[in-house]
Amino acid sequence: MEHHFSPTKYYTTLGPHEPVLRVNDGDTITTTTVDARGFDHRREQVTPRGNPQTGPFYVEQAEPGDTLVVQLDKISPNREYGFCSSSIAASVVDPNYVRELPEAPLAEWHVDREAGTATLTGPESKLGRLTLPLEPMLGCFGVAPRGSQAEHGGNMDYRGFVAGATVYFPVFERGALFFLGDGHALQGDGEICGAGVEISMDVRVTLRVIKQKHIGWPRGENSEWIFTAGNARPLDQATQHATSEMLRWLQQDYGLDPLGANLLLCQCVRYDIGNIFDPAYTMVCKVSKQVLPENHPG
Amino acid sequence: MEHHFSPTKYYTTLGPHEPVLRVNDGDTITTTTVDARGFDHRREQVTPRGNPQTGPFYVEQAEPGDTLVVQLDKISPNREYGFCSSSIAASVVDPNYVRELPEAPLAEWHVDREAGTATLTGPESKLGRLTLPLEPMLGCFGVAPRGSQAEHGGNMDYRGFVAGATVYFPVFERGALFFLGDGHALQGDGEICGAGVEISMDVRVTLRVIKQKHIGWPRGENSEWIFTAGNARPLDQATQHATSEMLRWLQQDYGLDPLGANLLLCQCVRYDIGNIFDPAYTMVCKVSKQVLPENHPG
Amino acid sequence: MEHHFSPTKYYTTLGPHEPVLRVNDGDTITTTTVDARGFDHRREQVTPRGNPQTGPFYVEQAEPGDTLVVQLDKISPNREYGFCSSSIAASVVDPNYVRELPEAPLAEWHVDREAGTATLTGPESKLGRLTLPLEPMLGCFGVAPRGSQAEHGGNMDYRGFVAGATVYFPVFERGALFFLGDGHALQGDGEICGAGVEISMDVRVTLRVIKQKHIGWPRGENSEWIFTAGNARPLDQATQHATSEMLRWLQQDYGLDPLGANLLLCQCVRYDIGNIFDPAYTMVCKVSKQVLPENHPG
Amino acid sequence: MEHHFSPTKYYTTLGPHEPVLRVNDGDTITTTTVDARGFDHRREQVTPRGNPQTGPFYVEQAEPGDTLVVQLDKISPNREYGFCSSSIAASVVDPNYVRELPEAPLAEWHVDREAGTATLTGPESKLGRLTLPLEPMLGCFGVAPRGSQAEHGGNMDYRGFVAGATVYFPVFERGALFFLGDGHALQGDGEICGAGVEISMDVRVTLRVIKQKHIGWPRGENSEWIFTAGNARPLDQATQHATSEMLRWLQQDYGLDPLGANLLLCQCVRYDIGNIFDPAYTMVCKVSKQVLPENHPG
Repeated sequence: MEHHFSPTKYYTTLGPHEPVLRVNDGDTITTTTVDARGFDHRREQVTPRGNPQTGPFYVEQAEPGDTLVVQLDKISPNREYGFCSSSIAASVVDPNYVRELPEAPLAEWHVDREAGTATLTGPESKLGRLTLPLEPMLGCFGVAPRGSQAEHGGNMDYRGFVAGATVYFPVFERGALFFLGDGHALQGDGEICGAGVEISMDVRVTLRVIKQKHIGWPRGENSEWIFTAGNARPLDQATQHATSEMLRWLQQDYGLDPLGANLLLCQCVRYDIGNIFDPAYTMVCKVSKQVLPENHPG
Repeated sequence: MEHHFSPTKYYTTLGPHEPVLRVNDGDTITTTTVDARGFDHRREQVTPRGNPQTGPFYVEQAEPGDTLVVQLDKISPNREYGFCSSSIAASVVDPNYVRELPEAPLAEWHVDREAGTATLTGPESKLGRLTLPLEPMLGCFGVAPRGSQAEHGGNMDYRGFVAGATVYFPVFERGALFFLGDGHALQGDGEICGAGVEISMDVRVTLRVIKQKHIGWPRGENSEWIFTAGNARPLDQATQHATSEMLRWLQQDYGLDPLGANLLLCQCVRYDIGNIFDPAYTMVCKVSKQVLPENHPG
Repeated sequence: MEHHFSPTKYYTTLGPHEPVLRVNDGDTITTTTVDARGFDHRREQVTPRGNPQTGPFYVEQAEPGDTLVVQLDKISPNREYGFCSSSIAASVVDPNYVRELPEAPLAEWHVDREAGTATLTGPESKLGRLTLPLEPMLGCFGVAPRGSQAEHGGNMDYRGFVAGATVYFPVFERGALFFLGDGHALQGDGEICGAGVEISMDVRVTLRVIKQKHIGWPRGENSEWIFTAGNARPLDQATQHATSEMLRWLQQDYGLDPLGANLLLCQCVRYDIGNIFDPAYTMVCKVSKQVLPENHPG
Repeated sequence: MEHHFSPTKYYTTLGPHEPVLRVNDGDTITTTTVDARGFDHRREQVTPRGNPQTGPFYVEQAEPGDTLVVQLDKISPNREYGFCSSSIAASVVDPNYVRELPEAPLAEWHVDREAGTATLTGPESKLGRLTLPLEPMLGCFGVAPRGSQAEHGGNMDYRGFVAGATVYFPVFERGALFFLGDGHALQGDGEICGAGVEISMDVRVTLRVIKQKHIGWPRGENSEWIFTAGNARPLDQATQHATSEMLRWLQQDYGLDPLGANLLLCQCVRYDIGNIFDPAYTMVCKVSKQVLPENHPG
């Protein structure tokens, strides 16, 4: 079934809030997200800032211990105005370099959806009017959490969360309580200024439930890779979470023994960085589908 | 001038050791490296294990405060036998997952230089005989250090240190004292088992000196990217070093003001992970040459 | 006014839950806490495990931006049975040492309130029946949080949170919503096995409100020290929070300029460690009252 | 045998340098150290800055695999002038607080050895002329290292390294090569401004060798405590080193089994912080002698 949902209320936390819509396993939801400061496609502020989320969507079949499958069908900017910060976060540079960071107003971007580009329009700097290709993504999505660790997703700001990716979340609450928001027209690795090119989005997702499938951390895949996301600080700990989850996955679903999973990962692992700005940093551990046991002659 | 140098002595530390050869600014050195355990192209152990290094090479014009430019002309495995560990390092998985790591003998790889592949030949596991493409690289290289921080390079294990890359090191000692070793036929990100496919190499490098050019951390470039490497633990700190160095570089050599450098990096930065195994972890901060001021219309 | 409150419901999260009692600025509450597994003074389980909290107490005058003052009047074990884990957490030892940790049942302690001691009664080990003096404390207390950072207190497990201490929390929700629980008859630094000698408690606290007093992190004092608590991981970051908060406090309330606050802290600071077990570690930064400007001749 | 040694040469690294004196197991050395900037008891600069060390002392019987025992007999300031920095290190405060740190000249202290006090004499601030009791200690001492990890001691800046303490170092080089320097008339925890009250010292130490006694990290004891020191960054890792070493010690020398060592440490451990300024931070793990098996009835 396909739902067209127009949000009227937003939450800035992913928690056990009242569902805005109830859907079934396999349903598709077409909806919108506002930008990180609560502005919609008309550039009108409809809710307070702080990464307001669309949702939660209650999935009837989802129970704690299941896995929620989120297919990202479409993520498209629905306006022309984007913005980001002008200065890298103090925590991302050397402590003694903090005083060298500029203090400047928000940077503004013109998003040309036809051309598929975003162009920096200010503030003035020696960089000029930089133009970059769009890579629309969701900075923040996931389900209601269990405790204070971010196994449920949240503000991961991973550049791989684009249309075409499928993401798996552990379910901790009845109905899963799926949220999404914080769209970026494009983003650098790490979201190191605390922002991608922030923008409101038209989004379509399809939600499914895998009953009694237990996973520890968000997992995902696209046509080329399978990946896991660990969320914690410091990055070393996020790396531990993501790597352990990948080892479990390779054994759980790809027929490998502990030794085989270790041998595969040792020489084939790739890491991507999600955000290194928020309280929990995100490290993504990935493996090319080409080297998975099902795809190599063995 | 081109030097053909056959090493007879190796050092397991990059330090102020007696130079093995004196060369001039612009000279090329063709030489060999042994594997991480001191075995050469005949699989004979010629020196004790511990990442034995070829060098140091004394570059006549290099003085503290200069920059040494290392052009990686050739890095080619010179035998068919490679090896790695079978188990991911305990520090890379969750503390509570450590007990799940296998204990197994060295893994062995057959390196087919004509086919350009490495094939896992043992130990037996459900992974079978995985075959991967060669991506020969140097795990360890750099100059004599200043203090206990690894601004001089060293065991960075970055997959980008392949033939075709050019690397810049700050000079701390007269003659720079350049070392190289620890070749990998290929490697996963992070060198998370403490080893790539370890192998001896034929190597050719060209060394140049940029007088009175001060840099803070290793820098590099290839046809597509410029990059900086920060070495420290935790990864958060390595990230701070690499990011600050990139901000400095963008201002020092690419004509950007602080605001322009910040704006560029915010939305264009990419991070790669070098080793997360050795005492100092390595984070690489990179920027596509396409978005550098000289290459975009501005 | 003095309230005698017998809890019938407990929360395992400090959040915006329905208050169990409304009190006024200056009121005293005499109540009880169950142990970390939900067992009360009769050793009957009255609520599920997971550090169940007594509260929240709604303080009528408290609003966001105020400070809640919690005077710890009494913290007394109200039964004879205590327990802890038998093994140090895997995250507190070297990754390669994890396999050396014992796997053993809960350790049990006999608490003799008259003698003021706790004696280990099992499991059997070469340590025998160790007897230690009681130092009753609260492992977990604080107010409803703002976001995902633990500026609101929570599971800090600091040995200094004993009767006689006064603790200050920033208020983020109307009524402050004060919680308390997780009593320890005594505890080692860091709560490195994830437990002190866990026990149910009789507690008396007095709550006051300082209007429009903004603080960033929990603060506290006793007859000898003033202290601040930073909660984050890694410890380095918790240290940054606690140290910055102390610098602010010295300037806000003790008449120091930035230079004076820095000079004082440089040579007089002491650090204590709260928990290094939970998701957020706790570092306490303290200064002796003897060296505060009001107490030294200057 | 007692040696009176007047240094004429200093090293700023603890490394395999030429010994300045050869002594025997059991010998006592009376000598002096210059301050961190190379100034002696007359306030004359006799060597470049950078924590110049007296030594190395070659102990005839010491070989790799042994333990060097250093009894700190005397550490006494030998002049009246001390100094420290005026500002806390940028790495010890929140990244966003760095801009609030003052920039100021060195702080100066008058050391009154008869009164046993140090008094701040400048720069001017609202703190005034703070007077603190002397607690003379060595900031930096140890033996020649093995590799890049600081198991050999070095710049630990632990307030417990005072006269009366006995310290144990693993020996990595023949002769151990013992160094000492960087005296502080007193110091705050963490050496958070990068300096204690820096001063030159008269020192007396007695060196002994325990043959074939292997330890992993520096250990120490005084009349009340046994302790271990882990050196690494972040503090979490230093904590892992120190805690693991204490578990080993309790089993190696105090007759405990793994379970007993864990049970003891869980509820009795205390942690002290050495420096959180240098590349390697120092965490000290300690246990009261009162609870060691030999001293409790069991």
